[in-house]
Amino acid sequence: MSRTATIDRQPAWRALQAHADEVRTTHLRELFAEQPGRFAYFHRQAAGLTLDLSKQRWRPETLELLLELAREAGVPKAIEGLLSGERVNRSEDRPALHTALRLPADACLEVEGEDLVSAVHRTLTRMEAMVAKFHAGQWRGATGRTISDVVNLGVGGSDLGPLMVTHALADYRPAGVHEIHVHFASTMDGSQLADYLSRLNPETTLFVLSSKSFTTIDTLSNARTARDWLFSRLVVAERELAVDVDRDLVMRQHFIGVSASPEKMSEWGIAEVNQLEFWEWVGGRYSLWGAIGLPIALVVGMARFRELLAGAHAMDRHFQAAALEDNLPVLLALAGIWNVNFLDIRAHSILPYDGRLEYFASYLEQLEMESNGKSVTHDGQVTTYSTCPVLWGQLGPNAQHAFYQLLHQGTQAVECDFIAPLRRYDDVIDDATRTHLKNQHRLTLANCFAQSRVLMLGDNAIDEPGERPNHKRYRGNQPSTTLLLDRLTPRTLGALIALYEHKVFVQATIWDINPFDQWGVELGKQIAGETDRILASRQGLDAMDDSSRGLIEALWRVEEQGREGEPAGTEALPSAGENP
Amino acid sequence: MSRTATIDRQPAWRALQAHADEVRTTHLRELFAEQPGRFAYFHRQAAGLTLDLSKQRWRPETLELLLELAREAGVPKAIEGLLSGERVNRSEDRPALHTALRLPADACLEVEGEDLVSAVHRTLTRMEAMVAKFHAGQWRGATGRTISDVVNLGVGGSDLGPLMVTHALADYRPAGVHEIHVHFASTMDGSQLADYLSRLNPETTLFVLSSKSFTTIDTLSNARTARDWLFSRLVVAERELAVDVDRDLVMRQHFIGVSASPEKMSEWGIAEVNQLEFWEWVGGRYSLWGAIGLPIALVVGMARFRELLAGAHAMDRHFQAAALEDNLPVLLALAGIWNVNFLDIRAHSILPYDGRLEYFASYLEQLEMESNGKSVTHDGQVTTYSTCPVLWGQLGPNAQHAFYQLLHQGTQAVECDFIAPLRRYDDVIDDATRTHLKNQHRLTLANCFAQSRVLMLGDNAIDEPGERPNHKRYRGNQPSTTLLLDRLTPRTLGALIALYEHKVFVQATIWDINPFDQWGVELGKQIAGETDRILASRQGLDAMDDSSRGLIEALWRVEEQGREGEPAGTEALPSAGENP
Repeated sequence: MSRTATIDRQPAWRALQAHADEVRTTHLRELFAEQPGRFAYFHRQAAGLTLDLSKQRWRPETLELLLELAREAGVPKAIEGLLSGERVNRSEDRPALHTALRLPADACLEVEGEDLVSAVHRTLTRMEAMVAKFHAGQWRGATGRTISDVVNLGVGGSDLGPLMVTHALADYRPAGVHEIHVHFASTMDGSQLADYLSRLNPETTLFVLSSKSFTTIDTLSNARTARDWLFSRLVVAERELAVDVDRDLVMRQHFIGVSASPEKMSEWGIAEVNQLEFWEWVGGRYSLWGAIGLPIALVVGMARFRELLAGAHAMDRHFQAAALEDNLPVLLALAGIWNVNFLDIRAHSILPYDGRLEYFASYLEQLEMESNGKSVTHDGQVTTYSTCPVLWGQLGPNAQHAFYQLLHQGTQAVECDFIAPLRRYDDVIDDATRTHLKNQHRLTLANCFAQSRVLMLGDNAIDEPGERPNHKRYRGNQPSTTLLLDRLTPRTLGALIALYEHKVFVQATIWDINPFDQWGVELGKQIAGETDRILASRQGLDAMDDSSRGLIEALWRVEEQGREGEPAGTEALPSAGENP
Repeated sequence: MSRTATIDRQPAWRALQAHADEVRTTHLRELFAEQPGRFAYFHRQAAGLTLDLSKQRWRPETLELLLELAREAGVPKAIEGLLSGERVNRSEDRPALHTALRLPADACLEVEGEDLVSAVHRTLTRMEAMVAKFHAGQWRGATGRTISDVVNLGVGGSDLGPLMVTHALADYRPAGVHEIHVHFASTMDGSQLADYLSRLNPETTLFVLSSKSFTTIDTLSNARTARDWLFSRLVVAERELAVDVDRDLVMRQHFIGVSASPEKMSEWGIAEVNQLEFWEWVGGRYSLWGAIGLPIALVVGMARFRELLAGAHAMDRHFQAAALEDNLPVLLALAGIWNVNFLDIRAHSILPYDGRLEYFASYLEQLEMESNGKSVTHDGQVTTYSTCPVLWGQLGPNAQHAFYQLLHQGTQAVECDFIAPLRRYDDVIDDATRTHLKNQHRLTLANCFAQSRVLMLGDNAIDEPGERPNHKRYRGNQPSTTLLLDRLTPRTLGALIALYEHKVFVQATIWDINPFDQWGVELGKQIAGETDRILASRQGLDAMDDSSRGLIEALWRVEEQGREGEPAGTEALPSAGENP
């Protein structure tokens, strides 16, 4: 799609600008007053989700114009291109086929001569066999003991997706299988890993190394530390137990690799039978649906993992089939475009009202900001309009005690997404406990509904005589979206994640940017490598800027103090966490 | 301090606006080129911290003008007022005396006739006795077994501070004491608590109820569930063990209360001897320094807890004594003012390069946004200028794989704080492990330095022949602060937290807002209560807006389906997490 002019010079964009001048001065409560039946007009349902966009600062006319913008930007054609495997990731010249990872076995998708469906299901079958072995208690460590702990070593897309989903679906552990405790270590500095190593038993611990390129230094640093820990500990065990443990056996029984590069996995020492491969056309932040999702399957079992895929696939079909005006991802995207580009709202808060979604905001931070934190169009032009806002969030009830103050009385407009399951705790067997927990859930929902109401109406949410002093007043007029799940299940969670994935794609299409590359993180890696060489060699400072030089010299001074044997301070006592 | 005009009409503000027009068009790399010795000029040290502000988009002249603004706003007088116990929290008509909580025993501070220092140290002594009892294995549950697990029930200020610090200082557990495992449950919906209840042993578990008002419904909901769990489980134990367990004994051995309201604690059933009291003049988000810090002391011991206080006190003394131009909190605050009010930068990212500081960004989100997310001056005028930006963050190395893309190539300017300890892992005994971990630490520092460099210089960070295509280009010019700790110890952590507390105070002083109230969270609580009554009674929907009505009706439809005994779906299986 080669455009004659950038999107902000198209008729719909200009019409929206003119329209915005008028809506901008209209308060949300006026919009509600002028349109009875606003909820009916602005809510939609699909795949177990209810999307309420009535608390956005817009009118029916706004939505019409935005839909026109989507058509002018070629959104329907772009959706088709994405799902059919066109090379939508143009800067890297490849398709972005995370949707293929959740196609059912009887679907057909041939892309550039390859039958993707059978390839995808071959991987799922291999995962299934691995999971079955763990759950049967048949995966044994080098000394013969059953593996009970699995540590996922990965960062970014190889961490946030599995971490978020295993946490969200922890209730769905299958009964009657050997339980696998799954842990996540991602930080480059070894903090989390050091903690696990001090607590876990090397004989019963297995590491999953997840890295698309298998060159991610954060992950490989942790992996090396983990490998040496196993070697040294299991050699001790060997002596004590008089079993025959060599390094090959340790590698074979304690490491699984997940990557798009089998060569690099082999080089590192991952046994071929323990290699799970995925494809270059799966972006890291879109990869939880395949082999990267192994930790999820280890927690919930393969049947539920397939339900997660089915839920995402249901959203894919909706995305493909529904008319633009009924299309959840399209509507969610358009609300964002309206806020960012026409109301100049630069921040977006993600507020789940369910403790199980603790990591959902972090997950979306990556999904949205890494995908759409771009400013160059497909044709290489620098955009003259804003793209991705800053996203952040926290569990809603906790954020009420943390940063809602700013949402209610700060100086900055913020868009909010409220997310909650309608039903919960149905299956708690004990009557009294169920009643307690169901009340806690109802209270949580009441808070969710109340907060979006107060953000919308401000003071008018309450009928109170007399004037309030200004410091007790609420302006309201903060726009929000409410997203309700019938219940939080593997299926609805799959649909929820896919909804946001597609939202990001629709926005990228309108902004004419590539959501599937991440060139903005390359230079940092390169400079970090150079800086590490300078720190290690103590040479090459002259080429640095004055600040970097100052910081590095501060480091060297402190290191010198250490070498000269100065006392490190009264606090420097040996400790468990630093001495695994 | 009653002003004739708001701060944005003062001479210094206007001079800064004029000055900003010129600086705004100057790239950071030009600022470095025009000022050799920029690091020396713009960095300061105090209390084990090094603050580098040279990568802010400012000139020496800018700082001069900002210091003039601080003087015009009366910052020195305000600092004095804060520390001496004036009623700086004017809307609630009381002082804000978190700094009194960390005064040494030989200090003097009499406020409104009360000798605060001895009152504070009496509480510390009581905490010390409690901690000693736990660490000696002498605190026993109702059936006589030693308490090994303590669950902190609290939210907001009663959660984030202790959570952040216990995580940061986990390496500092004292040797040779009975280890107490400390857990945190904050979410209103019972998610975290349900998980603990399914894993912990009621005989050896104690709950700390932390709530300043002791009316926080999130905490009391969890507390009720916990109490019933203990009652039902320990009655069972009583039968089995043939010990004499009554409810009073359970209350006495399994609950500690921390609150400013002893009456409400007694009402709830907390034994008087287990009540730790603090003062109305300690704000929730400033309260980790006293009784709310009990979980910290349970992890690191009272000696280290006192070091934490000493570090904060060192920063307090620096704040009081240092000239404005050398005053770390003042300088940090002024950098923020410059970015928000003169460069229109509305987002601020907190990026620690140390896994132990995992919760530091969440902690600051509350500290800054709840304190300064305000828009009404002390005199009740609505501000015409921006106040607190949106703050968010993540461990730096992880965020490199998540949202740095947006920092490097997005369309939005963001201020970043890079935070890192210079030395680490000195005390790891095993040579090979120490070398491994020290290398991981060095690599982490290299990344920290490299990222702020690339954010500053953009493409110019690298010397490369030829043109890059636009999608591989980096604009640079993103301002950042680097904060180095000599090492992360109780002392430097205390200083670091106090630094940010005082930064917030200085900004509030300049913006002429009250950082110590939080009226913006009151209305939501009230409306949530009303909404909960509607949900429970199924009455009163008519008064609601159309969206709330639609959402609540959606809930009732789903609940009806449940009551009519419809199958809840294939996913509705009983599960451990939901059935504690």
